[in-house]
Amino acid sequence: MPRNFNYDILPQIKTRWSPRAYSEEKIPREDLLALIEAARYAPSCYNEQPWRFVIADTPESLEKFRSTLADMNVLWAKKAPVLIAVCSKKSFSQNGASNFWHQFDTGTAWGFLSLEAERRGLYSHGMAGFNRDAITKIIGLPADYEVMAMVAVGKPGNKNDLPTELLDREEPGTRKEIPAISFFETFAHK
Amino acid sequence: MPRNFNYDILPQIKTRWSPRAYSEEKIPREDLLALIEAARYAPSCYNEQPWRFVIADTPESLEKFRSTLADMNVLWAKKAPVLIAVCSKKSFSQNGASNFWHQFDTGTAWGFLSLEAERRGLYSHGMAGFNRDAITKIIGLPADYEVMAMVAVGKPGNKNDLPTELLDREEPGTRKEIPAISFFETFAHK
Repeated sequence: MPRNFNYDILPQIKTRWSPRAYSEEKIPREDLLALIEAARYAPSCYNEQPWRFVIADTPESLEKFRSTLADMNVLWAKKAPVLIAVCSKKSFSQNGASNFWHQFDTGTAWGFLSLEAERRGLYSHGMAGFNRDAITKIIGLPADYEVMAMVAVGKPGNKNDLPTELLDREEPGTRKEIPAISFFETFAHK
Repeated sequence: MPRNFNYDILPQIKTRWSPRAYSEEKIPREDLLALIEAARYAPSCYNEQPWRFVIADTPESLEKFRSTLADMNVLWAKKAPVLIAVCSKKSFSQNGASNFWHQFDTGTAWGFLSLEAERRGLYSHGMAGFNRDAITKIIGLPADYEVMAMVAVGKPGNKNDLPTELLDREEPGTRKEIPAISFFETFAHK
């Protein structure tokens, strides 16, 4: 089903989606660091910048990262030339207090990363299906951080290479309509 | 201190920041709904779309929303013609299970909203300093949701109208350098 837009919005927001058909072509580190550049300019509570990104783009590191993915994700993400573990620092650096906003802020940074990928003609696809303990150990993440998502990055591939069960899902997802997620004055006014 | 950019990135990410000098000029609802349009196309775990936005843009609703802000935020946000309570649904709609990613995903949507605001020449400024219980009651938010941020939206105002203690901070914030937040292969490689 095609996406419908009621308003003119940022082109990269319109066109970004979460594909599974990746090309195995390597991605220059210049591009990957530009994605981090975009992420780091996200806003955050007290400018804490709780986001951290651990990037796999070599055969050895990709194999390790892939070993933590859920089977349904391995099916397609095995081709992706880049996997990024999106990590988040749970406490404020200034005083060690728990940061209620760290996941929220790291989500903002991931969003910025995804839009810069789109601008560069790169696919990005965030995954929740992975073994958090396993990736935490593999990347040596300290206890005060947690891995929020694994993100595949790469160039578009041939969707006919996808397994049949994924081929049907290879299109932009639809969304709830605006009146279902936004309200004036009170939540109850629907 | 001016922001430094090592790579070419999305213009709206470069120019977006969190100002405090707002004009009291009203914002058309068409613009506000376009911000929601941008937010709703964020990616989310299982496409749950946990984000909800409750918008105050009338004198009455603004007064109520403002009453929940921390004093330091009232100092400047009292002029903003729009305040948005960014809410997040804690459980998955399909099965009621706890959604570990809801704050992360709602953060992504807020990021998209902020970039669309920037594209439209609107300021946006997310706040963590507010009374969560108070705003929850005022908007009638059900128990399965929580308010993650209050966001001021509006047109640029005169920064000389700001109290002295805020005037010095009225410039784009700087960020950690790329090597401080991103690593290849393992977190320990700094």
